[in-house]
Amino acid sequence: MDAYLAVVAKREVREYLDRPVPEDVLTKILQAGRATGSAKNSQPWRFIVLVDREHRHDLARAMMAPRNLDRCAVAIAVVLLNERLRFDAGRVAQDMMVAAWALGVGSCPNSVRPDEHDRMRQDLGVPPEAAVATIITLGYPAPGQPRPRPTADPEKIVAKLNRLPLEELVHREHFSG
Amino acid sequence: MDAYLAVVAKREVREYLDRPVPEDVLTKILQAGRATGSAKNSQPWRFIVLVDREHRHDLARAMMAPRNLDRCAVAIAVVLLNERLRFDAGRVAQDMMVAAWALGVGSCPNSVRPDEHDRMRQDLGVPPEAAVATIITLGYPAPGQPRPRPTADPEKIVAKLNRLPLEELVHREHFSG
Repeated sequence: MDAYLAVVAKREVREYLDRPVPEDVLTKILQAGRATGSAKNSQPWRFIVLVDREHRHDLARAMMAPRNLDRCAVAIAVVLLNERLRFDAGRVAQDMMVAAWALGVGSCPNSVRPDEHDRMRQDLGVPPEAAVATIITLGYPAPGQPRPRPTADPEKIVAKLNRLPLEELVHREHFSG
Repeated sequence: MDAYLAVVAKREVREYLDRPVPEDVLTKILQAGRATGSAKNSQPWRFIVLVDREHRHDLARAMMAPRNLDRCAVAIAVVLLNERLRFDAGRVAQDMMVAAWALGVGSCPNSVRPDEHDRMRQDLGVPPEAAVATIITLGYPAPGQPRPRPTADPEKIVAKLNRLPLEELVHREHFSG
């Protein structure tokens, strides 16, 4: 899939087919994370692949949106070794999700409930100085969900985005400029 | 450019040709930012395009790496309206940088020095509750810098990445698993 198309067309997918994501596709998504740049190439992240259905079901109670983790095909918890580096966590999550989209796989970033974060960390064996920055849920899109269309026209997608117009988002030289 | 290739091949570019980024290319990069997902579609970002050379030169003193902002062709300051949402800032920055790479344009995210952030915010007219999360510097790569190669083989790039091996980055079900 064309890169510009993938970036502008990527939507969050929250309902998934009961169909596994093949291991080679999952590896490509993880390599996209691995390749991502970070401050001083510190790679302040680790990825926990969550395939086991019962495990995901147990963990789901700690999520803002339990259903996504419960019903996905596989999930990737992004562990941030230095929890101040949320910006880098966003970079790596986006790269994995855009790569997934280009490979036909839907995804959504999911937040852990703040009051459940300690328990989640303990359940996953994550050290106290680290954080579970997000859990990316993955799977092939269920009917009715957004889905990757490799032949779509990116300009048409941009024209229909459910977003503020560029004129409201973009300033020149100065915030009010 | 292929999306998977763009994601795994994107490197930071810190030295740029003295050649402007055409307005239509810049617009595509900004549209990539606009299209990015955010928590509850809150779009907690605004983009300040910095073209004026003298303005960038003045602002550069507030940066961790002044040279990048001083010498780039154009820059995009990512203003975060709610400064806690650094994760979303990373997502939107990565989308713009991957789109830029696919369009032949090099980029680098740049941090504002913490002790200069207040001055930067005032200079740019950014409200007190907001933050300048990053300034993305952009331009065509100077000789010797990494550059987008649309015909490269992503698997070969992955095989040579200057990153920890996947075995160290990826755990299964449990951090030590």
